Amino acid sequence: MTGIVSTDGERRLVLISGRAHPQLAEDVARELGVEQVPTTAYDFANGEIYVRFGESVRGADAFVLQSHTSPINEWIMEQLLMVDALKRASAKTITVIMPFYGYSRQDKKHRGREPISARLMADLFRTAGADRLMSVDMHSAQTQGFFDGPVDHLWAMPLLVDYVRTRVDPTNVAVVSPDAGRIRVAEQWAAKLGGCPLAFIHKTRDITRPNRAVANRVVGDVEGRTAILTDDLIDTGGTIAEAVRVCMAAGAKDVIVAATHGVLSEPAAQRLTGSGAREVVVTDTLPIAEEKKFDTLTVLSIAPLLARAIREVFDDGSVTSLFDGAS
Amino acid sequence: MTGIVSTDGERRLVLISGRAHPQLAEDVARELGVEQVPTTAYDFANGEIYVRFGESVRGADAFVLQSHTSPINEWIMEQLLMVDALKRASAKTITVIMPFYGYSRQDKKHRGREPISARLMADLFRTAGADRLMSVDMHSAQTQGFFDGPVDHLWAMPLLVDYVRTRVDPTNVAVVSPDAGRIRVAEQWAAKLGGCPLAFIHKTRDITRPNRAVANRVVGDVEGRTAILTDDLIDTGGTIAEAVRVCMAAGAKDVIVAATHGVLSEPAAQRLTGSGAREVVVTDTLPIAEEKKFDTLTVLSIAPLLARAIREVFDDGSVTSLFDGAS
Amino acid sequence: MTGIVSTDGERRLVLISGRAHPQLAEDVARELGVEQVPTTAYDFANGEIYVRFGESVRGADAFVLQSHTSPINEWIMEQLLMVDALKRASAKTITVIMPFYGYSRQDKKHRGREPISARLMADLFRTAGADRLMSVDMHSAQTQGFFDGPVDHLWAMPLLVDYVRTRVDPTNVAVVSPDAGRIRVAEQWAAKLGGCPLAFIHKTRDITRPNRAVANRVVGDVEGRTAILTDDLIDTGGTIAEAVRVCMAAGAKDVIVAATHGVLSEPAAQRLTGSGAREVVVTDTLPIAEEKKFDTLTVLSIAPLLARAIREVFDDGSVTSLFDGAS
Amino acid sequence: MTGIVSTDGERRLVLISGRAHPQLAEDVARELGVEQVPTTAYDFANGEIYVRFGESVRGADAFVLQSHTSPINEWIMEQLLMVDALKRASAKTITVIMPFYGYSRQDKKHRGREPISARLMADLFRTAGADRLMSVDMHSAQTQGFFDGPVDHLWAMPLLVDYVRTRVDPTNVAVVSPDAGRIRVAEQWAAKLGGCPLAFIHKTRDITRPNRAVANRVVGDVEGRTAILTDDLIDTGGTIAEAVRVCMAAGAKDVIVAATHGVLSEPAAQRLTGSGAREVVVTDTLPIAEEKKFDTLTVLSIAPLLARAIREVFDDGSVTSLFDGAS
Amino acid sequence: MTGIVSTDGERRLVLISGRAHPQLAEDVARELGVEQVPTTAYDFANGEIYVRFGESVRGADAFVLQSHTSPINEWIMEQLLMVDALKRASAKTITVIMPFYGYSRQDKKHRGREPISARLMADLFRTAGADRLMSVDMHSAQTQGFFDGPVDHLWAMPLLVDYVRTRVDPTNVAVVSPDAGRIRVAEQWAAKLGGCPLAFIHKTRDITRPNRAVANRVVGDVEGRTAILTDDLIDTGGTIAEAVRVCMAAGAKDVIVAATHGVLSEPAAQRLTGSGAREVVVTDTLPIAEEKKFDTLTVLSIAPLLARAIREVFDDGSVTSLFDGAS
Amino acid sequence: MTGIVSTDGERRLVLISGRAHPQLAEDVARELGVEQVPTTAYDFANGEIYVRFGESVRGADAFVLQSHTSPINEWIMEQLLMVDALKRASAKTITVIMPFYGYSRQDKKHRGREPISARLMADLFRTAGADRLMSVDMHSAQTQGFFDGPVDHLWAMPLLVDYVRTRVDPTNVAVVSPDAGRIRVAEQWAAKLGGCPLAFIHKTRDITRPNRAVANRVVGDVEGRTAILTDDLIDTGGTIAEAVRVCMAAGAKDVIVAATHGVLSEPAAQRLTGSGAREVVVTDTLPIAEEKKFDTLTVLSIAPLLARAIREVFDDGSVTSLFDGAS
Repeated sequence: MTGIVSTDGERRLVLISGRAHPQLAEDVARELGVEQVPTTAYDFANGEIYVRFGESVRGADAFVLQSHTSPINEWIMEQLLMVDALKRASAKTITVIMPFYGYSRQDKKHRGREPISARLMADLFRTAGADRLMSVDMHSAQTQGFFDGPVDHLWAMPLLVDYVRTRVDPTNVAVVSPDAGRIRVAEQWAAKLGGCPLAFIHKTRDITRPNRAVANRVVGDVEGRTAILTDDLIDTGGTIAEAVRVCMAAGAKDVIVAATHGVLSEPAAQRLTGSGAREVVVTDTLPIAEEKKFDTLTVLSIAPLLARAIREVFDDGSVTSLFDGAS
Repeated sequence: MTGIVSTDGERRLVLISGRAHPQLAEDVARELGVEQVPTTAYDFANGEIYVRFGESVRGADAFVLQSHTSPINEWIMEQLLMVDALKRASAKTITVIMPFYGYSRQDKKHRGREPISARLMADLFRTAGADRLMSVDMHSAQTQGFFDGPVDHLWAMPLLVDYVRTRVDPTNVAVVSPDAGRIRVAEQWAAKLGGCPLAFIHKTRDITRPNRAVANRVVGDVEGRTAILTDDLIDTGGTIAEAVRVCMAAGAKDVIVAATHGVLSEPAAQRLTGSGAREVVVTDTLPIAEEKKFDTLTVLSIAPLLARAIREVFDDGSVTSLFDGAS
Repeated sequence: MTGIVSTDGERRLVLISGRAHPQLAEDVARELGVEQVPTTAYDFANGEIYVRFGESVRGADAFVLQSHTSPINEWIMEQLLMVDALKRASAKTITVIMPFYGYSRQDKKHRGREPISARLMADLFRTAGADRLMSVDMHSAQTQGFFDGPVDHLWAMPLLVDYVRTRVDPTNVAVVSPDAGRIRVAEQWAAKLGGCPLAFIHKTRDITRPNRAVANRVVGDVEGRTAILTDDLIDTGGTIAEAVRVCMAAGAKDVIVAATHGVLSEPAAQRLTGSGAREVVVTDTLPIAEEKKFDTLTVLSIAPLLARAIREVFDDGSVTSLFDGAS
Repeated sequence: MTGIVSTDGERRLVLISGRAHPQLAEDVARELGVEQVPTTAYDFANGEIYVRFGESVRGADAFVLQSHTSPINEWIMEQLLMVDALKRASAKTITVIMPFYGYSRQDKKHRGREPISARLMADLFRTAGADRLMSVDMHSAQTQGFFDGPVDHLWAMPLLVDYVRTRVDPTNVAVVSPDAGRIRVAEQWAAKLGGCPLAFIHKTRDITRPNRAVANRVVGDVEGRTAILTDDLIDTGGTIAEAVRVCMAAGAKDVIVAATHGVLSEPAAQRLTGSGAREVVVTDTLPIAEEKKFDTLTVLSIAPLLARAIREVFDDGSVTSLFDGAS
Repeated sequence: MTGIVSTDGERRLVLISGRAHPQLAEDVARELGVEQVPTTAYDFANGEIYVRFGESVRGADAFVLQSHTSPINEWIMEQLLMVDALKRASAKTITVIMPFYGYSRQDKKHRGREPISARLMADLFRTAGADRLMSVDMHSAQTQGFFDGPVDHLWAMPLLVDYVRTRVDPTNVAVVSPDAGRIRVAEQWAAKLGGCPLAFIHKTRDITRPNRAVANRVVGDVEGRTAILTDDLIDTGGTIAEAVRVCMAAGAKDVIVAATHGVLSEPAAQRLTGSGAREVVVTDTLPIAEEKKFDTLTVLSIAPLLARAIREVFDDGSVTSLFDGAS
Repeated sequence: MTGIVSTDGERRLVLISGRAHPQLAEDVARELGVEQVPTTAYDFANGEIYVRFGESVRGADAFVLQSHTSPINEWIMEQLLMVDALKRASAKTITVIMPFYGYSRQDKKHRGREPISARLMADLFRTAGADRLMSVDMHSAQTQGFFDGPVDHLWAMPLLVDYVRTRVDPTNVAVVSPDAGRIRVAEQWAAKLGGCPLAFIHKTRDITRPNRAVANRVVGDVEGRTAILTDDLIDTGGTIAEAVRVCMAAGAKDVIVAATHGVLSEPAAQRLTGSGAREVVVTDTLPIAEEKKFDTLTVLSIAPLLARAIREVFDDGSVTSLFDGAS
């Protein structure tokens, strides 16, 4: 047959990062043992973003990492532009890594005439040229279905559970969901901790004082136990801080808060410090600026998990296997 | 300007139904005050389905209703074929009405290498030619986001709550979710019932007997109260029947079960009859054959709600307005 | 340049099968010398199907085989779900093998307001994620054009002709099409049998008895010859049995029936047995249950052909070459 | 509610034509009672086509007519450009009218590595912006399924049959297909002519002279009858002229040829004149230049049929109804 | 025929605005004589945007206006979310109005591995659900072709020319392009001003001083004339201020600067004030904060043009007609 | 894991050519050191094109080359058909090479109701199955953005500049654009020639004779210098010949014309010969028939550039690197 035949069988993994969280990109690169593709990215005077890669990515399996932190729309747009540039530069496959999936909380219409922003994000990245998404602990598991292609959904829970287990007496804990809608995750925590008690905070209208807002109370038993408050993210900390107080009022011995994503918007640091929680544990899927930190905050590194998942994807291995026994 | 100008301003609503639930189609037609489009539908010897409409649907706003009951794949395929036929027959818009959204429980990957079947269904209908979906109480609200277009998500809860309120003493009830993951809906029930107590059934491993399955217990307080067990659907009734027993064991006065979709697969009738529940309330989004019925079963008609929603869609009114104050 | 380079050049073929025709999947696997991917597939109580693969298919060239036999909508849906699961599990390419292409007879609108079901099937599989279709003897060759991508259209005719040639005196046969619309295939048979006579059955209204149905007669000459009745499929056997009778009435010595797809819906066995045909030859593109079999039925194995085609696809060889000299 | 409300209910039909067959466009316009949209269309020096409409088509239902005659690629491209211009000029709907569907004979792969050109044409028009196709007597009915949207497939057969009936003794005719693959259409002719005999021309290798080409013979009975040779189109006339001779040799009294599309490429006029056919009947779906005409040629006008179909589409009537009793 | 027929012929125009430039939205609404749809839009603590419309938009022709000013990515994302919400709320058509088209300067790859950001924007809006774009003076006319649908490209030049004509002696002007690539627009200005002289600023390397940057000089004649410097936008004002100086150095009597889009990023005000230009004229396609303004700045209102174009679109009139004689 | 594993790592480059410019295909093949895939391509009597490849292209990286010369619509259609055939024959990637991009001058709407033909071409090729485009010196750089995928945009300017530099005294030249809109390219020429003077031809209405057409004059200084007139293409030569005259009238010593694409439609040869230009330099992106040639015409070969770019694409190298220092 005619034609030129090549048998080098070569495939190339490249790691690319936006500007949102350079430390995480560096950590992932080090774990992978790879240099990042040199990339130019800056803002024009009117805020438009410019990006360009410093070397050829033709034929490569590109992984483009961006942390959806504040200013979140800026960083999402930068990642979209990078995906477009990769597509037009003939990358073979493009995997978008968003350790925290921006807009993931807007995953349904609460009322008429709202967007479903989490679906829109999936479509925007697909349109730009993404072949695959990788993310950690999406707000709802259904969000995977928003993307028309493979999604590697990583779980930080094993990481968090392993750490928390070293900080408590596992025979005397209760897992508490700060919200009725998040109790499924708490249930998984309880299972991993050996079947400990489970509770949740119930927001209810105080029917004796009809014009007053809501009262919160613990449904389930936390008395005398270390309450482990779990959530996917901590934003301004209002819900969590209130939950800590309610747990303490219900007789908890003390409270540890564990969440994957430390959004920590103002005034989270102040609220959490003042809440009485013994410790607040998050991962670094989002950068945590110095001014957001506080004494009782512990930050676990998500980079090893991301690096292992990237490697499995590149080697046609199994991402599922990373979580065997985890769920 | 050249051209032929027509100013009749005519728009035409047509209602079409598959073979799955003729009674519901008839009820909706009667509520709307419209005849169904005469339709031929039958199976060839090898099971392939044939459909054809008996009159022109060109330019019409078509609403095609099918109940996703057993044999569910047969009825979904029939509805897909009807949508294709409508598209090729030049219907102006095609609204797919699936009162119960088939495969809606498979809305995420529980483990690797599963499909996300609920997303696939949305895409199949889109591909066939659907412009809009209409459904009642989807298993998760995120499912709306699976369809690339407008989805009219109707709520049967007001209907169920209004009925149940007539059957209980509202000051002495507790709303119970049979499963941690469904507690959000229970919370909405509790709110609509004036802020009554809330509980859920927690599946836990009995740590004293490690090799035994799970024990269920009520988290929250139901003692002396009428427990209202709420769910989106009742399939074989196993979870619900067990939940009834656990409520009774926890001291509930009696139990009423309320769910939107009465799937009632074998042996639901037997299990529910034997569970000790005072009454089981569902709607007729799915047909309930005579042999599935039992003494304590109450079936509410969903047709008025569907008809009103169809009318709002056709009149460019507001479907949201149907639920003002409902959520 | 930066990046991690792999030079393993590895590609992996995996074979997956639905539940419709396990024997065929086994035969194809044996011919290929490969194990099938362990797969879980079952029905929920309400008929929804669940599927999951037991090992990673990431990066693999997946071939997913399903026989579109009764209950045909169930099996088509199962195959669609498998394709969706493969897509989301990062299979590199997905080839859908449907030895008999379900709904292929509905490949045009006979009258207004019908679907074009064969096109719809192609689109549904495309939407689910199929990259390529493989099928045997589609009802019309145009069906290939319904799929937006490569279609490997295999021909069973060489297999059937080779067998039939051993059963007849080739100098004394006539090839007969049971229907004017299928005569092109009969013409190919006649060519392969060395240019033997050709005939077809013509359905005509008996103009002497205006209100009576139709009379059938042979157009062409079969007298004294073995008539070989050819078709793409035999469903209930009505047309074929009538054709056998008409051939015998026209003086045929005897009749052999040859078709690719043995749908054999009730009452095919009875009709064909009673028709007077000497032998009925089909392949096993569809499973033939014991109760469908009858003495004069011969079933040829399609597995070697499918296995060779799969191998050519995987090796970037030529499927066309399998039929050199065949058309 | 806010907003500006208009209740004029106005819809506007506009007719646009390419340069291929101005007479047909004029005839259709006259039948419809409408002026064509003034249109500029010319070729640049290097053959690129320029088109522009002379007045606004915003919001209009546009019907764009082009005859796919030689130079066929030029005229197809012109029509594609017109569709693009209509889309970008905000036409509300765009119906592409191709009385003869170019490339419709390439509707399947006869051998590997061919295009399926008829499907490609459908996709090109879809991409350019076509919402609907309208065509007359496509080469195969399956071609309808190549377009992802409504196709109005018109039948010229009633027109041809009505004319031919006036030219023959209906009790003494036989309908003959010039090719085994076209016999279905001949069968429909036979039915419309009251159930007259049916025959076809069979190409067969002369087995007594193995290295010689093929011999043609009539399968079926034409002796003493007027043979009506039917086909969808006449291109160079070779097949038809040979068929006329074979019919005469088989004892036909005389022969009338009837086909929808008079492609009449060189040397059709000469061949048909010399063939001995009494009359050749076609429609003017394609322009017939003076030098292509000959004494025994009759050309029927397709414009009334097109105009009626356009009107039905615009009025949301039924195109199917135009052929009631026709098939 | 069956069905419910409505003949109200009602169409409804709704105007919606993002938060970027409320004054412009107000002006357009007043010109149109319409209230804006009440809309909720705010930022969550982490910067995610929330939007919701306060009344039904079902069936409406929606025009959603956003000025792509700084923070530009925020405002683009807000507009995308609004489009998604409109689509899911069943708006009949969605027209995106971006008076200044964000990222329009990145309309090509200057070097390898860059995005084509202007194309990406078009695709993002298409994906979100936009049917049509409307914009004023895009950076290049080719940008229209980036959107797969109608684009209404409005020209502010007539507005600017009409104003400038009142400020100069038309017999003694020269039109100057600040950049070789923008000279086409200057040529149109010159034509509209009656054929006055044309010049451009040429950036050239000073070959006598090889390691020094570039020297700018006027190509063409401006001596003794009022130089009218035209451009599509003024960003930081560097190029324009330099051009003013070069014109003055070349003997221009004085200089007027005219541009459609007043981006006016820091330090534009200072640069332009210090440049020596007699007057700087822009429109308000972008909001101009008080601190950006300066004495010689004149801002013309773009609202009347936008309002007229919206009205033409809604009335199926002609947007082209707004510029008759303009180009 | 189950499956068949291949580790041959084989990739295959195939070169395919349409019939428009066989010499160029041969030159490119020779430069690459590859045989072209044997291909059948001819016209049917009515002008429809037939194509077929003579050997398997399954799994290959296919490069399909066609020169968009007259009859341009014919050759574009042939290339579209080839792409469709490649897609259906399972080519792994398809790169469309159009050395001159047909319809590239129609890249925007000059007035309302025109197509954007250059965008349409990009979409047609995408629809047919093209993964990537390769072209030389598109009329506007924005055209790259019309294709939804990678575009390798090659520059012939280095080739032309290198040649012209040998023909002139670089210290005594001026680069002249024949049109204000093309001056950017002239500017790049001037830069590559070391910063020489720049000018353009300005079309202006002669205001002293209002009803007369336009006068052309040089803006910038060419006196005593060799004027290098640059453009992307020369079509009928009218603009260029006039520009040569205007340069000479403005005192240029002599004139050299350089353009990438030699369309050279009638009467270009005559006009250019008579214009007084010393030499006209083009490349062979388009075939130049003997009758189009003339004494002062020089044709440079584009094949080496195309071959190098193809090789870079196949080897996952960098096409950008071919032009380092070029822009």
